[in-house]
This record gives sequence, C-alpha cells and structure tokens, in this order.
Amino acid sequence: MKEEEEMISEAPPKAATFLDYPATKKLQELAKNPIDLTKVGTLTPQRVKSFRVDGPSLSILYATERVNGETIDALYQLAAEANVYDWMAKMQGGEVINKINGVESENRSVLHTAMRDFFEQPNSSVLAKEATRLAKLELDKLENFVKATPNFTDIVLVGIGGSDLGPEAIYLSLEKYQKPGRRAHFISNVDPDNAAKVFGGLDLKKTLVVVISKSGTTLETVTNEQLARSYFEKAGLDCKNHFLSVTGQGSPMDDKSRYLESFYIWDFIGGRYSATSMVGGVLLAFTLGFDNYLELLRGAQQMDKNALTKDPKKNLPLNLALLSLWNHNFLGCPTTVIIPYSQALSRFPAHIQQLDMESNGKHIDRQGKRVSFQTGPIIWGEPGTNAQHSFFQLIHQGTAIVPMEMIGFMNSQYGEDLNVQGTTSQQKLLSNLIAQAIALATGQKSDNPNKGFEGNRPSLQIIGKELTPYTMGALFSLYENKVAFQGFIWGINSFDQEGVQLGKVLATKVLNLFGGAKREEYPLGAAYIDELN
Amino acid sequence: MKEEEEMISEAPPKAATFLDYPATKKLQELAKNPIDLTKVGTLTPQRVKSFRVDGPSLSILYATERVNGETIDALYQLAAEANVYDWMAKMQGGEVINKINGVESENRSVLHTAMRDFFEQPNSSVLAKEATRLAKLELDKLENFVKATPNFTDIVLVGIGGSDLGPEAIYLSLEKYQKPGRRAHFISNVDPDNAAKVFGGLDLKKTLVVVISKSGTTLETVTNEQLARSYFEKAGLDCKNHFLSVTGQGSPMDDKSRYLESFYIWDFIGGRYSATSMVGGVLLAFTLGFDNYLELLRGAQQMDKNALTKDPKKNLPLNLALLSLWNHNFLGCPTTVIIPYSQALSRFPAHIQQLDMESNGKHIDRQGKRVSFQTGPIIWGEPGTNAQHSFFQLIHQGTAIVPMEMIGFMNSQYGEDLNVQGTTSQQKLLSNLIAQAIALATGQKSDNPNKGFEGNRPSLQIIGKELTPYTMGALFSLYENKVAFQGFIWGINSFDQEGVQLGKVLATKVLNLFGGAKREEYPLGAAYIDELN
Repeated sequence: MKEEEEMISEAPPKAATFLDYPATKKLQELAKNPIDLTKVGTLTPQRVKSFRVDGPSLSILYATERVNGETIDALYQLAAEANVYDWMAKMQGGEVINKINGVESENRSVLHTAMRDFFEQPNSSVLAKEATRLAKLELDKLENFVKATPNFTDIVLVGIGGSDLGPEAIYLSLEKYQKPGRRAHFISNVDPDNAAKVFGGLDLKKTLVVVISKSGTTLETVTNEQLARSYFEKAGLDCKNHFLSVTGQGSPMDDKSRYLESFYIWDFIGGRYSATSMVGGVLLAFTLGFDNYLELLRGAQQMDKNALTKDPKKNLPLNLALLSLWNHNFLGCPTTVIIPYSQALSRFPAHIQQLDMESNGKHIDRQGKRVSFQTGPIIWGEPGTNAQHSFFQLIHQGTAIVPMEMIGFMNSQYGEDLNVQGTTSQQKLLSNLIAQAIALATGQKSDNPNKGFEGNRPSLQIIGKELTPYTMGALFSLYENKVAFQGFIWGINSFDQEGVQLGKVLATKVLNLFGGAKREEYPLGAAYIDELN
Repeated sequence: MKEEEEMISEAPPKAATFLDYPATKKLQELAKNPIDLTKVGTLTPQRVKSFRVDGPSLSILYATERVNGETIDALYQLAAEANVYDWMAKMQGGEVINKINGVESENRSVLHTAMRDFFEQPNSSVLAKEATRLAKLELDKLENFVKATPNFTDIVLVGIGGSDLGPEAIYLSLEKYQKPGRRAHFISNVDPDNAAKVFGGLDLKKTLVVVISKSGTTLETVTNEQLARSYFEKAGLDCKNHFLSVTGQGSPMDDKSRYLESFYIWDFIGGRYSATSMVGGVLLAFTLGFDNYLELLRGAQQMDKNALTKDPKKNLPLNLALLSLWNHNFLGCPTTVIIPYSQALSRFPAHIQQLDMESNGKHIDRQGKRVSFQTGPIIWGEPGTNAQHSFFQLIHQGTAIVPMEMIGFMNSQYGEDLNVQGTTSQQKLLSNLIAQAIALATGQKSDNPNKGFEGNRPSLQIIGKELTPYTMGALFSLYENKVAFQGFIWGINSFDQEGVQLGKVLATKVLNLFGGAKREEYPLGAAYIDELN
C-alpha cells in the first residue's frame, strides 16, 4: 500500500487535457442530437430575444446556433473546468504563458492588452504595469510626432503579416474618419510590382514611410525598405526626413541616423496582436488623427475588461469562443466563415484569418504532446451581401456545413443613403443579414429537389450600433480574446509560430541557388528552378 | 425468363454515379496508403521533372502531391469512365447541359467559351456558331465605342457577384497594362458607404458608369445604379451621356433613352463565367485598350481548346481537376487554398472562390438525387508571401490538411526590381514558392515537438513565364474548365445556383418590415429588427 502511494506521488501530476474534461464528454453526448432548427416552433421570436449576450458596444445573437440551454450550460462548465478565467487573468496580468513545458520555447509574457490599459490604473501585476508604462511613453512620443508633421499627406506602411493585416483592416474600416487629404498605402509582398504600383502615384516630398519589423531583419520588409529608399533617392530626397521605424529597442532598425523617429514594440507583443500598439498606431494616428486612435484603444480596453468577467453570461469573447468551439470540435465543422455586412470591414476577415490560424493552428499541447483532437479551424470570409452572390450557394446547398459569424451595424457610417422603393440601402443590407441567418437555419422543403434547402446551417450575429473607432477597437479585442480563450480550452500555446520557420530556412537555401550557389548544394531546389525556366 | 427480361427493360437505365465507377473504387483503395512524401528518396529532382503537365502558356508541377503513377492512371481512368471528354465537347458545342433531369430547371446551353472562339472557325454546332456570331457583334460594337470615347478617364463598374469579382480580378492583375490616366472602380455592395467612397474622389464629367445585370433587376445593382445616378444629377450632369449597361436584350436596362450604349449578354453565359464576355469586356477594353482585351480572349481560347484534348496527359484543366478531386474526395480534405505568388493576383482567389463554390456547391446530382459524397470544396486564399506570415502556421503545423494550389511566374511584370544581397525580389518570391512546396511535402523531424513538421501536406504549382493579358486569359479558362470537369465527374449541374433563392425571398419579407409592413406579417424578421435596434 505504502509502495503504491509513493509511486503515485513520484509521478508528475497528469495535466488535464481537452478530451478529459467531464464537460467535453457531456458535449460529445449532446452533439449526437443537437437541436433541429428546421423544426417548426424552434426558431421563434422568443428564442431570438433570449439567445443574446451583451458586451461593450457589441452584442452577439445566437438563436441560429444549434444549441439549447443544456448545451450552453455544458459549454460554460467546459470554460470553468479549463480554468479559462484564471488563464485570462494570468495573460492580462503579464505571467509568462507563451511557453511549452519541458522544451525550449519562447517563454514570454503576452501583453498586447497593456497597449491600451492606461486609461485607468491597471489592476494587475508589476509586469503588466511596466508594459503599460512603456506603452504610454510611446503614445506620448507619437502624439508629439503627429503634431510636428502637419505637412505630410501620405504614409506608406512597409511590413508583412501582423505588421500589415491588422493596421490595414482598421484603416480601411475607418476611412470615413480620415483627416482631409491624408491617405495610407501598404507594401507587404516581396513582389516588386507591389512597390512599383504604390510609389508610382505619390508625391514623395509629402510622403512618410513607416517600416515595421520587431527584429529589424524580416526578409520581405528589409528588401521592401531598400526598394522604397531607392525611390526617394532617385527623386533626390533624403530618406532620413521621410522614414520611420517601429521595431524592438536596439534592433538594426533602431537607428537615429537613418530614421526620422523610431517607435518601440517588445517581445511580449505578438505580431498578430500588435495592431493597437505602435505597429498600427503610427499610421492610424497620422491618417485618422490622434483622438480617433485613442478611441480605438478605449474600445479595445473595454472589451479586454469584459474578457476578465467571471460571469460567463456577460463575457462576450468567451461566448464567441465557446459557440465556435461547439461547431468545430463537437459538430465537426472544419471551417468558420466570417461575413461582415459592411464594405468597410472588407479586410477584417483576412486579419482574423491570420490572428486565429497562426495562433491556434497547432498540433502539440502545452506539455509538448501531440493532440488527438482538432485545434484551430480554417477561417475565411468576404463581405456580405457580395458573398451571397459568390459562395453562399455552397453554404446553403453544398455538402459541407460552414458555421457563419456575421457582423452588422444598425447605422451606416457615411449616412449618404438613398431611399429606393421605400427603404434605405442600410436597411437592405440588414434585411439580407437577417434573412440569411433565418434561411440557413430553417431551410425549406420543396418538391423540386434542386429547390430544397436542408437547413441546420449554424450562424451567429455580432451586432453594434455603428462602426466607429471605439466599436472597431472592441471588435478587434473581441476576436483577440476569443482566440486566447479557445487556446486555453484546448491547452495549446496560442502565442508562438514555430510553423513558419522551416519554410524560411528552405527559402534561404533556394535563394542561394539564384545567388550563384552550386546546384549540388541543394539539388531539389535546383530541380524546381529548372522547371520554372 | 421472359418475365424477368421484361422487368429489366421496363426499368429506366440506372445512370452511373461517381461512387459506382470502377476507378472510384480503385482510388478509394489507393487512398488508404498514399505515397509518403516525407520518406527520404521520394521527392527527388527526377520526380520534380517528371510530374509535370504543359498547356498553353501555363504548366502544372505536381511532384508534391500524394500521387504516384498508379494514382494518376486511376484518375485518368475515372475521367474516361465519367465521359468527361464527351461532356466538355457537348458544353463547348452548345448542347443544353445546364439542367436537372426530371424536374424544372434552367435548361440552357453553357457557352462562355463562345465569347472567345471567333479567332478561328468554331469546330462545333450551329448553336455555338450562333453564340460566337452574337459575341462578335458585341465585340465590334465595343471596339467602336472605345474609339469614340477618348476623353473619359474613369470607369465605375456597378455589379455584384459574377459581374464584379471576375472583372475586378482581371483588372487588378493587369494594371501594368493600363492606358495612362485611365482607372477603374467597383461598386458592388449594397452598403451605401461603398458608393460614397468611390464617387467622393472622381471627376464625374470624365467618368463612365457601366451597370451590369443580365435580368436588369438585381436588387443591389438597381439600388446602386440609382445611388450612382444621384451623384451625377447633383453635379448637374446628364446621366444619359455617362451610363452604359451590360444586360440581356430586352431587359429593363436595354433602354437607349437612359444609356449611352447597351451591350448584350445571354442566358447561356453564367454570371461567374462571364468575365471574358462584355461583363468584363467594357471595363477592360476601356482601361487596358482593346488589343489587350483581345489578348486576354486569345489566351482563354487556347486553354478552351486544350480542355477539348482527349489525351489526358496534355489536358491541363483536366489534370488540375483530377488532382484536386483526389485530395478532396479520396484523401478527405474539405478545403483547397489558392496562393498566387504575385500581388497582382490579389483578388484571383476571391474570383475562384465564387466560380468554384457557386458551381459545385451542390447536393443533388443530375438525376435530382441527393449525393452521398462530397461535392465542391471550400476555396480560399491570399497572395504569397504574405500568406506565409499569416495562416501558413496552421497549414504546416495545424491539425487540418489543406491542399495548396500555388501560382507563380518566372518574371515580374514591371521589371522595376532591386538587387538586395545578390538577388532580385522576384527571385526571393520564387524561392519562397519552391521552399514552401518542399517544406509542406517533406516536413522535418525534431527533438523539440514544437519544432517538428509532420509533412505530407499536398500542393501543386501552376507556373508561367510572365503574367500578361494572354496568360491571364489562359488562367481564367484553366479554372473555368477545371470546375466544369469536376462537375462532370461528380455528375452534378455546375451551371445553376438555386441555393441563392431562399435568402432573396426572405430578405424581401424583412425589407417589407423596414418599409412599414406590420410585424404580424413576419414575426421572426420583426424579432431580429428589435434586437438590432
């Protein structure tokens, strides 16, 4: 007996994993017979009213998900069993959660939320407070910089991945708020035609270039920066008066002799979580004005606070995480489609695609063990109503089930609307959002099999009053925290990206061949170059 | 004995379906043990060289697919058993193949290929010849129109779905070929902010608007046209001198009193197949010049001819169809990602997403029977190398397998390239394309589980010398014919879109509520409007 006890105490405590939680088993049972939304009397006005969660400036309607009260209770139980509230507090408090136990890993804090919590006293650890202090220094530097550069009209962002998609998605969403005469442009791809197109149309004398790379060594960005500098040099301009950098302190890009100003980011800000840091800040404060940038941060901060709520009924990001996870892990849907009913959000799906898939596209858990369940889904999407005229055919009548996250606003941004046949365009847009949710859920029987709709296609609706800087900040934070919550539940590290490394190494080997290396050094790469020629 | 024979002869001949073909069963067997690309000695330079198909101006490399000679033979056998060569000849010959047997359906020919076969005598039926004759009339009208309007600078396309995505994808891909001072703009979404943004920046006196709707009644397009006309009226301009239509002859938009010119399309041109017809033609001939538009048609026509080739080894669209189908139906991958290593192709994936998913997102076969296999996959994608810094993490290390179709060109379009560290940007772009193909296939073992890559992620590479109007035409036709071939193999009708109807009907019901209808007329819609307010 004593021997057995000792053996037990010697073994490390087995970490509970996603498949072990009692709630997981319960949800697996429930998934065998989910609610049938096509049944008359299921999707009622009362259900529409009750299946709703409210958060800062945004709400989620989920009457058209295949859930009932029992499902929601089990999902909330799952959240509790996975300790997601503790994890979220640890994250926002600055604990080192970007790590894999037992092997070499990044071992960093994850503090993008500190980029926007200076509006009140951060309620957390010394580390988070220090991050907030650093962020505030940069913010003040930015405010002064924007005041000091009134004569520039255009800003070109040179960056890739997280340094590009988030800032571009926000910029496009808020063009309505743009300062008159100010425009932003983006160069991300190493494709030289991208830069040629952008610089072809600019008055370089009035143009700023902000180059973004945490390490200061990202291949695409360094290459594009040199290409960008060559345009200024050809025009007889001194790059020193036009180029800015956003980079890590002490990186090769932190260099007063080459940049008009350098803004800092830190290793506790992941690229895909960096849009509200100086990565997005420089471009957004320049084009939208400093106050609008602050409003964006305020909206994000309120949603961060909401994510700390331990009452699951009030925690908006947690609900989004759980509903999406239900469709993915329990109903077996491999993808999620994001449909903003707002042209201004045209690049929001591309940002979420990166945020989610780079964070949760992982195959090992926090103990370094291969998972035996599905982690992050494939995320894709386009704006509605356009998407209705594109791929909705498959979503309604195809053989794959595609859970949909719709985003919509009661009012348009510009208000320049026209009453055609008794209703405004904005009302037409919302009518489509509502109609699609109902059509996907209920389907429709028909004697003509080609006109039949099987229904039970799940969706939810993220709604707000109007797309403002504040709402956009809240929307960004909503998804950042959704992704974090899902990672906590799956027990994976959502904050590193080792999967991009192998391609980088091999690209260098192929590039060496183009640069003159002998084909024996990489015969496989050489074979491909032969085929391309 | 006689009785039995009679019974047999009375029963209608059972149509062979996808699951019945001997080749399907053979492929199901082969899929149990597909080639292991991670094994040393599998992906060799010799394999790279031999696993290749060439077509007009484009080739496909497929050494990194999980196929061997036996798989390819079985796929070619499948193509033969499904009679795809006959079906393709029927399609291009103008037979009525847009139909479902035994029920009400569209019952139309499918003749987008006739929009580009006037360069030589069409080798086909009376019907195809007549379509070609009609197309040529419009082409001549367009040539005259472009000559007669030298003073306009901008053209705004008002259309949605197929009237928008294809033309926009082509326009963006060929901006290099743009006539100096000419620009195109796109209004598709019913979101009123979309129109406000476009018209805000234009000199309306020099602006043409081309409105596209086959029926002349598409809700979004009619609404946006009225909105567009209001901008011209406010500016004191006569819309009649600025507005063009592309529509069906006799539709409400075929009206000389309201349009400067009307160009025709016909019911044998599906929206998603219409980019090479006048739907794309008006905008492309205006911005790129008539000759470049002709080059686009020539490229498409050559690929159409290639699709008629009965030697499977030489039929490029057929190979693309079969390789994709192998991954989807036999290896069980629910999605396909399209990665163009060319920023100019930034909207090409969105076009293919529509083309493929609206065509093959179907659940019944040509006999009206519910299929019991997966039809069209989910299609998504973004340009490389950007995508590498976005969602490639999941493709390398996630739990889902995502087959990839890469597109790359040996030379850049602009040629304004910079040599950084001994190589050009175009070489860096290609190095990444090659490196990713190899990395995805071979993976990499590691003692650190977080740095391990499981490999066996399939991909293929579509390659060409340079992205020209001709190549772009070939690329468009390559995918149009790929989609058609897959539909022929699955035995579905790839040419209708009944799945978009239910949403339209319900949207009208909701819109009536906004317009003042009583809530009792649609309580469910009213409940949603309540929640949005």
